[in-house]
Amino acid sequence: MHDILNYSLADFFFNDNKNVLKPPSDFTEWMSDPRVQHGYSFFEQQLLAAPKVSTEILSNLDNKKRSIINLTSYNYLGLSTHPEVIQAAKEGLDQYGLGASGAPLLSGTFDLHVKFARMLADFKQKEDCILYSSGFGGNVGAIQGLMRKGDVLILDEKCHKSLIDGGTLAQTKMLFFDHNDVNSLALMLEKSKDKRVMVVVEGVYSMDGDLVDLPNIVKVCQEYDAPIYIDEAHSTLMFGENGRGVAEHFDLEEEVGISFGTLSKSFGGVGGFICSNADTIRYLKGYSSPWNFSCAPSPPVVAGLIKALEVATRDSSLRDRLWSNTAYLKKHLLDMKLDLGKTESQVIPIIIGPSGEKLMGFAEQMQKRGLFLQPVDFPAVPAHARRFRMSVSSQLTQEEMDRTLNIIEDVVVKGLRS
Amino acid sequence: MHDILNYSLADFFFNDNKNVLKPPSDFTEWMSDPRVQHGYSFFEQQLLAAPKVSTEILSNLDNKKRSIINLTSYNYLGLSTHPEVIQAAKEGLDQYGLGASGAPLLSGTFDLHVKFARMLADFKQKEDCILYSSGFGGNVGAIQGLMRKGDVLILDEKCHKSLIDGGTLAQTKMLFFDHNDVNSLALMLEKSKDKRVMVVVEGVYSMDGDLVDLPNIVKVCQEYDAPIYIDEAHSTLMFGENGRGVAEHFDLEEEVGISFGTLSKSFGGVGGFICSNADTIRYLKGYSSPWNFSCAPSPPVVAGLIKALEVATRDSSLRDRLWSNTAYLKKHLLDMKLDLGKTESQVIPIIIGPSGEKLMGFAEQMQKRGLFLQPVDFPAVPAHARRFRMSVSSQLTQEEMDRTLNIIEDVVVKGLRS
Repeated sequence: MHDILNYSLADFFFNDNKNVLKPPSDFTEWMSDPRVQHGYSFFEQQLLAAPKVSTEILSNLDNKKRSIINLTSYNYLGLSTHPEVIQAAKEGLDQYGLGASGAPLLSGTFDLHVKFARMLADFKQKEDCILYSSGFGGNVGAIQGLMRKGDVLILDEKCHKSLIDGGTLAQTKMLFFDHNDVNSLALMLEKSKDKRVMVVVEGVYSMDGDLVDLPNIVKVCQEYDAPIYIDEAHSTLMFGENGRGVAEHFDLEEEVGISFGTLSKSFGGVGGFICSNADTIRYLKGYSSPWNFSCAPSPPVVAGLIKALEVATRDSSLRDRLWSNTAYLKKHLLDMKLDLGKTESQVIPIIIGPSGEKLMGFAEQMQKRGLFLQPVDFPAVPAHARRFRMSVSSQLTQEEMDRTLNIIEDVVVKGLRS
Repeated sequence: MHDILNYSLADFFFNDNKNVLKPPSDFTEWMSDPRVQHGYSFFEQQLLAAPKVSTEILSNLDNKKRSIINLTSYNYLGLSTHPEVIQAAKEGLDQYGLGASGAPLLSGTFDLHVKFARMLADFKQKEDCILYSSGFGGNVGAIQGLMRKGDVLILDEKCHKSLIDGGTLAQTKMLFFDHNDVNSLALMLEKSKDKRVMVVVEGVYSMDGDLVDLPNIVKVCQEYDAPIYIDEAHSTLMFGENGRGVAEHFDLEEEVGISFGTLSKSFGGVGGFICSNADTIRYLKGYSSPWNFSCAPSPPVVAGLIKALEVATRDSSLRDRLWSNTAYLKKHLLDMKLDLGKTESQVIPIIIGPSGEKLMGFAEQMQKRGLFLQPVDFPAVPAHARRFRMSVSSQLTQEEMDRTLNIIEDVVVKGLRS
């Protein structure tokens, strides 16, 4: 291994070690290199307090506790720490205990789960809803529950790993169309005309923050009678006049057959959900392993989530603040001539380019200056477009935004020039 | 479809409907039959209070609220509702909020997660531990993280669906050996001699309550240098002198390469974990989707789980009571000449036989008498051995056990005679 830095996790997937519990020998060599260790030191840094904008971490860089402005957590609307949400979860603990103690079918369904699923279905204007204990489980489970060997799952090439794993688990054929490119999608649909198909898109793409081109995708899917599955993980409670997501934003909710959402991002909890027709959900429940073979979501978490949905939808104040904060940060980052890619959302990439060393260097300097903005490196993003990915929060104050912009200017803008 | 009752979910997996969102037409017909509806009415009945032994459900049978003795929930040690656990979770809510708001790598790891993973690794006497937000994700993710196309996963035929789904997701070849049969296992190992293999067993098999024949399985695996993966979902905190599980019970902990546990059963929360060598866990983290692409477990749930582990291990009182309750119930059920299969654990099947109608009839009568003991029907268990599956709890009082036995005698014993 002559140039350690040319390697990434992508190179160690295949394992020639006869013992499956032993990593490939060159993996251990690679991991122990100080430069790789430095990159890894950004991972699994411990938060010592709630995932608010102002919080505390134990930095892996120098093992120091540090007060930081946190622009990495997905607590977009501050609901994870909203006092009413916390209070509701505490009442849930008193009434129901910590865990559901069973899978949903036999003994894990509480009145809370039924109520919350009904609220989500009504909110998303679909007939029914199924709750999963993780967002990953929801995407995997919905695709596994509906798609069969010989079917074709057609995904935007930027879709999340959980959607791809769902296709692998369902043993379907998977085709990937060029990102947001309807011509590329049409080709795939034409090729799959005699097959059962489903087209998978995301409301907001998580690495770039751009939106699905839903109007054009709906058009071509209607031509081919292909159902659409939309993952609104990074858009629910934020997009659309009523916060229902990107499908509402484009006024195309009825055109979407399946709507997935996660409960760990804007909702501030954990879990996932699928909204669709009642007969689709009924059938899905028969064959979706992560639902049938998982404990139901924790009742106090569900109690908190019910309150989170109420708080986020009783008026538009949280998303209004999210969008004004996003506009403010974007304007000033663009004024600094930073490359924000095609972001149209609260997910703002700051694209650094091909240098992993620069990326990691900036990350370290920013963290030491008190800004927790995590680097996203290859293979999570293309090697020529390594980046920071800012998660804007409605809870950011003017002072916190200005401090953030100062640090980015000092570290990234000046660093890119030198 | 002439005889509706000859069909089960197993018959509707393949779907000839061109639209993947539409169930097969005969599925809808089947589901709407009153007899099938009656069977389904046992599913997703709502618990209206904590999953304790004495709790309340909204019965689907007649839409009545009913106080019941609950022998279906997995709250084996009562930890889901233990006052110290509830208090710890509330403090976790105050300090950390409801959700982790991020995946473990970038921003979802809190000091709590690191502390709990360390405690679990020490408890299981392994070097390291990885936490998953669901037990399903843990089994799927560990196998996906370690096994590759071309490898062979050799599973006991009674293994849980999450283990099989892990093999499917990893795209490995899967071989199933006859339940607990070392000769059958040896044949599979011999056949796979030139491949990378892993042998998967469970500590307690969840439908029968019997134990893995670990001493003999270890022997044959050592002959073939095959690593062992043990799923201790239904045995952790209960088996072994210190509650470490069935591997401790057999004094074979070092012989097991990977130990999986769930956090939703005896622990009373939700989630899963894998304990193994540090380098195995390090490598696994690189390729395990449910860890990399899921939100980290909810911090207040982890706070509760830390306390649950402390409570369950500071003395043996909870598991002592579990085993004395189990012995009492088993003795009296055997005195009634009921078929309990080969149970050796707190999971006690009461095998009714091939009649689905009897099973459902007994279930209904018991529920109306105040006993919540859920039927387990084909295809979850073989059609000739439909059953009830009792989850014994350490929290059962003498009075509750005697009432339970009375109801079972009146309904099941008398019903089987007639």
